Amino acid sequence: MQNICLVLEYIGTNYAGFQRQKNGLSIQEVLENAINLALSEKVKVTPSGRTDAGVHAYNQVVNFFTNTTIPVEKLKIPINFYLPKDIRVKSAKAVDLSFNSRKSAKKKTYVYKIYNGQNFSVFDEDRVLYYPYKLDFDLLNKGADLICGTHDFNAFVRSNATTKTTIRTIFSSYFTREGDYIVYHITGNGFLYNMVRILVGTLLLLGRGKLSLDDIKELLNGGNRAQAGKTVSPCGLYLENVEYD
Amino acid sequence: MQNICLVLEYIGTNYAGFQRQKNGLSIQEVLENAINLALSEKVKVTPSGRTDAGVHAYNQVVNFFTNTTIPVEKLKIPINFYLPKDIRVKSAKAVDLSFNSRKSAKKKTYVYKIYNGQNFSVFDEDRVLYYPYKLDFDLLNKGADLICGTHDFNAFVRSNATTKTTIRTIFSSYFTREGDYIVYHITGNGFLYNMVRILVGTLLLLGRGKLSLDDIKELLNGGNRAQAGKTVSPCGLYLENVEYD
Repeated sequence: MQNICLVLEYIGTNYAGFQRQKNGLSIQEVLENAINLALSEKVKVTPSGRTDAGVHAYNQVVNFFTNTTIPVEKLKIPINFYLPKDIRVKSAKAVDLSFNSRKSAKKKTYVYKIYNGQNFSVFDEDRVLYYPYKLDFDLLNKGADLICGTHDFNAFVRSNATTKTTIRTIFSSYFTREGDYIVYHITGNGFLYNMVRILVGTLLLLGRGKLSLDDIKELLNGGNRAQAGKTVSPCGLYLENVEYD
Repeated sequence: MQNICLVLEYIGTNYAGFQRQKNGLSIQEVLENAINLALSEKVKVTPSGRTDAGVHAYNQVVNFFTNTTIPVEKLKIPINFYLPKDIRVKSAKAVDLSFNSRKSAKKKTYVYKIYNGQNFSVFDEDRVLYYPYKLDFDLLNKGADLICGTHDFNAFVRSNATTKTTIRTIFSSYFTREGDYIVYHITGNGFLYNMVRILVGTLLLLGRGKLSLDDIKELLNGGNRAQAGKTVSPCGLYLENVEYD
């Protein structure tokens, strides 16, 4: 028995999210089917975390147990053969049997891509948020900086989500800009349901002058979901990286 | 009666090329339908030139005649409303009645995008050619430089194409590189059927050492199609720009 860890890249547009479900095709279902066909063995993959419908990944990490005799360094070839062109295994390696993609994860990084100009490109459809409103970039970064540290993110979780604690630690949070494109980068020890998308929705209101830095501080103190910004589209969100010890 | 000139951006992946045809959905058909719905008037658009199935455009230029009373500066809004998300009007302006997108064009620029690394991204599917072979970048540019000038491009046209003359003038031809991405840029007074894709296929053979600079020189002297490289995939080709007086 081996424990195999895969790094995946996928475009989330055509899927109902990572997790297998009854009402829609999930990345998990497609991936498990491809592995089953490639290894002639039924496996169940564990991801570092779910991604919602329409959310993309540059480096999602999953693991699964297998008795295959295919050498691990060749494993990605047959799996990729059975995967559609919007999901791809970038690498495969054997890991300790105790490794669990979700539980062993120490840090996760997401990026959120925004187009802030007037000529949204067809090539950015489903991949970048079109947000043509005037934004104060320095103010955006002052707000992003407030997110760093340990806070009660109760205001930044989907209201019907059930979770033991809404406290999370954020290691870095900042915006970068290149021409009309703005990218939000956030690294933390974990994220609540919809948390990054609500944070971005809230910071964009700050950048437009519709919320103040004091409003953000208050929201970070276990504030109310209704006071935060809206959940922005999943199309701009990418799981960038997952770090382990 | 007004002559309206539109600049269009489109992803060619889902279309059977620009030109209207019986066996597949064309960009022309979708665009004319959108204009007909937006202006309640049947129009026929003239493009700067056809693009093949799967070829993209950053700035395709078309014109059409209309009796609409919608102000030209507002025209793109209703047309875009009826267009699918992979075709978009970037701008609209009124031009002289004598303007013809095809006949008035003086220069056209195409770019061809190549990924020359080992980890082809899902985000580049249908948009970039995956070409993992070792390439001599300096040699590529020496070959590209030979393309400049006026030549008989008989070796670089689809063999069953009918055309009055295979002589064309190329104003610039060069490769740029950024990380594992290589982009070919070519500007000319006109292009034969499949010409850019055959030029790229031939220059890639040069870059791999399978053709010499002398071979390229010979091909540029009205050589034989069979001696040139293969027609590379349309997925990496973009109509970048069309210039008028």
